[in-house]
Amino acid sequence: MPRPIPGAECKSVYILRARFCDTDLMGIVHHAKYLEYFEASRVEYMHRRGVSYLEWTERGIHLPVVELAIRYRKSVRFDERIAVETSITEIGRATIKFEYRLHRDAPEGELVAEGSTLLACVGNDLAPKRLPDDVADLLCRPETHPRPLDRA
Amino acid sequence: MPRPIPGAECKSVYILRARFCDTDLMGIVHHAKYLEYFEASRVEYMHRRGVSYLEWTERGIHLPVVELAIRYRKSVRFDERIAVETSITEIGRATIKFEYRLHRDAPEGELVAEGSTLLACVGNDLAPKRLPDDVADLLCRPETHPRPLDRA
Amino acid sequence: MPRPIPGAECKSVYILRARFCDTDLMGIVHHAKYLEYFEASRVEYMHRRGVSYLEWTERGIHLPVVELAIRYRKSVRFDERIAVETSITEIGRATIKFEYRLHRDAPEGELVAEGSTLLACVGNDLAPKRLPDDVADLLCRPETHPRPLDRA
Amino acid sequence: MPRPIPGAECKSVYILRARFCDTDLMGIVHHAKYLEYFEASRVEYMHRRGVSYLEWTERGIHLPVVELAIRYRKSVRFDERIAVETSITEIGRATIKFEYRLHRDAPEGELVAEGSTLLACVGNDLAPKRLPDDVADLLCRPETHPRPLDRA
Repeated sequence: MPRPIPGAECKSVYILRARFCDTDLMGIVHHAKYLEYFEASRVEYMHRRGVSYLEWTERGIHLPVVELAIRYRKSVRFDERIAVETSITEIGRATIKFEYRLHRDAPEGELVAEGSTLLACVGNDLAPKRLPDDVADLLCRPETHPRPLDRA
Repeated sequence: MPRPIPGAECKSVYILRARFCDTDLMGIVHHAKYLEYFEASRVEYMHRRGVSYLEWTERGIHLPVVELAIRYRKSVRFDERIAVETSITEIGRATIKFEYRLHRDAPEGELVAEGSTLLACVGNDLAPKRLPDDVADLLCRPETHPRPLDRA
Repeated sequence: MPRPIPGAECKSVYILRARFCDTDLMGIVHHAKYLEYFEASRVEYMHRRGVSYLEWTERGIHLPVVELAIRYRKSVRFDERIAVETSITEIGRATIKFEYRLHRDAPEGELVAEGSTLLACVGNDLAPKRLPDDVADLLCRPETHPRPLDRA
Repeated sequence: MPRPIPGAECKSVYILRARFCDTDLMGIVHHAKYLEYFEASRVEYMHRRGVSYLEWTERGIHLPVVELAIRYRKSVRFDERIAVETSITEIGRATIKFEYRLHRDAPEGELVAEGSTLLACVGNDLAPKRLPDDVADLLCRPETHPRPLDRA
């Protein structure tokens, strides 16, 4: 079965707040924490499509990160709200590419960072396996369980 | 000025969701992460009272944890919702005691952990100082900026 | 079989260095990181007795933390060396109590924090189980694989 | 003053051990933790050249990460030793590029990941500034304070 081509519907925005423990002695959010923001946003992306990543992991479908890149443009401080725009831009045989744009406070806010992660589909044995068709299809759906953006 | 006696109004409930990166190889949330949940809940406790902890830190008022205790009763798994009931139970000359009860999914859910942290008031030089009266008073207010509980 | 009574030989000292990412905007090591130091020290305590905690986890023996307490006495800064003195003080039917004393730079240095963790023995299903006798015995041995203290 | 051209002497190997808290429910080291390994290795790279990054931060010289890329090749498990080969490959007016190769157990071991970080020189105000010449020179020195590789 051919892979769906991700389109504009493959995008969600998740709002989170920088925690105190996310900061370092420079007084800004530590660069490693952005990966936690990306990850939480991917999980939320799935929730918005009625998908539970937890169920997939229990079904033996894991999606570890195999490549990532980030460009940090502006620093983020404790307690700032960050809008993480999360998109799927490519779905391959056994991989999914997510892209992220982090904006200060709201989706219209200042761009503070952007990045991407390539995820590979693996089983419980961590060996690569084909991304199941139903998983690929669910990921390319528009949001069916949207959420208000004024959270966090 | 005598310290306010914390009462039933010194309580807030914050709902958060266990992140994937919060888990360890046992498949459950790592015990150190509960401290991040406590901390995020303290910050939210302050937001609900119109208080910004960030402003206090910029004013040279810091509240580091000087003692803590936790009792873990049940494990928590990835993506579970946790309701953190956060209360102030004592305010001293230069200290504040917070207590926490973590319930699965909602405030009425199963008790999964409970704990406490004693915070000391210090300045930018990290030397102890008297907790300012306005800070003590704000912390003992009832919620003035409540939030719906169906978040996360 | 009765439990061994932990004695003076149930102590090891592990030296580690505070990482940049361990700090927060106060410029000091974040209080949650001490739990990572405790944990790394427990693992090292086992290595010094020829024990691999990894093998135990693969054998279905897990030792999650069920209670913990910490008293923070002095702050720790980035790149400081910390000597973690780790002792077993009690071994019960299904529990082990570890105590920790953190000293600045070396075992003779300033006491910066002290704490304890109670670990429970559980199986892969996370249900409590009796701590196997060989595990209890290995934990109460003196160091058989000591290491120089000038590391980190 | 022209920048030094980094050569073969701009390389150090740091050995660390994957901590229990570094793992996630897949049973492997979480991808965000690699950034902590990179960072600890940069700090060690500096120690080997008699440089204290802490002193630089106190002098108002900070080196935040502004770009990063990682390619994860193999998973790493709890308690595995990782040899992080850390090199400086470019020094610009206000930037330094570090590259990393992580090998399992020892520098000759299996390549498990590789990555790079671009650091920018900024002051206490987080505004970009020229990398001081003495800093650039120190970073391009060969190791003057080497350490045995059998640590961790």
